[in-house]
Amino acid sequence: MELEVLTPICCSSSAPPLERDEAVRVAAGFKALADPARVQLLHLVSTADAGEACVCDLTAALGLSQGTVSHHLKILVEAGLLSRERRGTWAWYRVVPEALTAIAGTLATPERV
Amino acid sequence: MELEVLTPICCSSSAPPLERDEAVRVAAGFKALADPARVQLLHLVSTADAGEACVCDLTAALGLSQGTVSHHLKILVEAGLLSRERRGTWAWYRVVPEALTAIAGTLATPERV
Repeated sequence: MELEVLTPICCSSSAPPLERDEAVRVAAGFKALADPARVQLLHLVSTADAGEACVCDLTAALGLSQGTVSHHLKILVEAGLLSRERRGTWAWYRVVPEALTAIAGTLATPERV
Repeated sequence: MELEVLTPICCSSSAPPLERDEAVRVAAGFKALADPARVQLLHLVSTADAGEACVCDLTAALGLSQGTVSHHLKILVEAGLLSRERRGTWAWYRVVPEALTAIAGTLATPERV
């Protein structure tokens, strides 16, 4: 009996494939960011001096109504990209670094030699 | 006459804001990736051994029809995330590293001391 060497169906990549479940999670993160106002909000929160931003600052910075900003922030929180903490009158937002790292990882291009 | 010190409206961040035009471009890239199959395709192309992948390999790897894969690839090319070159029978795809770097940059969280 001869030994048969099987080659994988896709022979152009040696990296492990991105599993479907992981791709679904990552795509949901990208979907939450598929809006210019939400991209601006994420940037404002991630660069806030104390690592957190108040919804009052965010509203003023974007020139949008508080209702609109709150709607966009809710989508970012539901996608797990931002966390939210209410203190007194205002809600404060922080980025969730692990979530951003996970979706940014799919955008990395390997170094080639 | 007294000198008045003006403070910016949004005083919680010292980083320059993300301009609206840039946010629109970045959001368009995220929108193109807001689908699990497209996330998997980008990953397959970016990790392909020679830095490029043939549509024939991609179709086999995802278990989708060639028409469906071609549709998703077209969206990624139109968003500027992949480039496409036809050689002989097949089209070959590569990532556009600058485009991925640009959108990944908005996901970076600054180091805090």
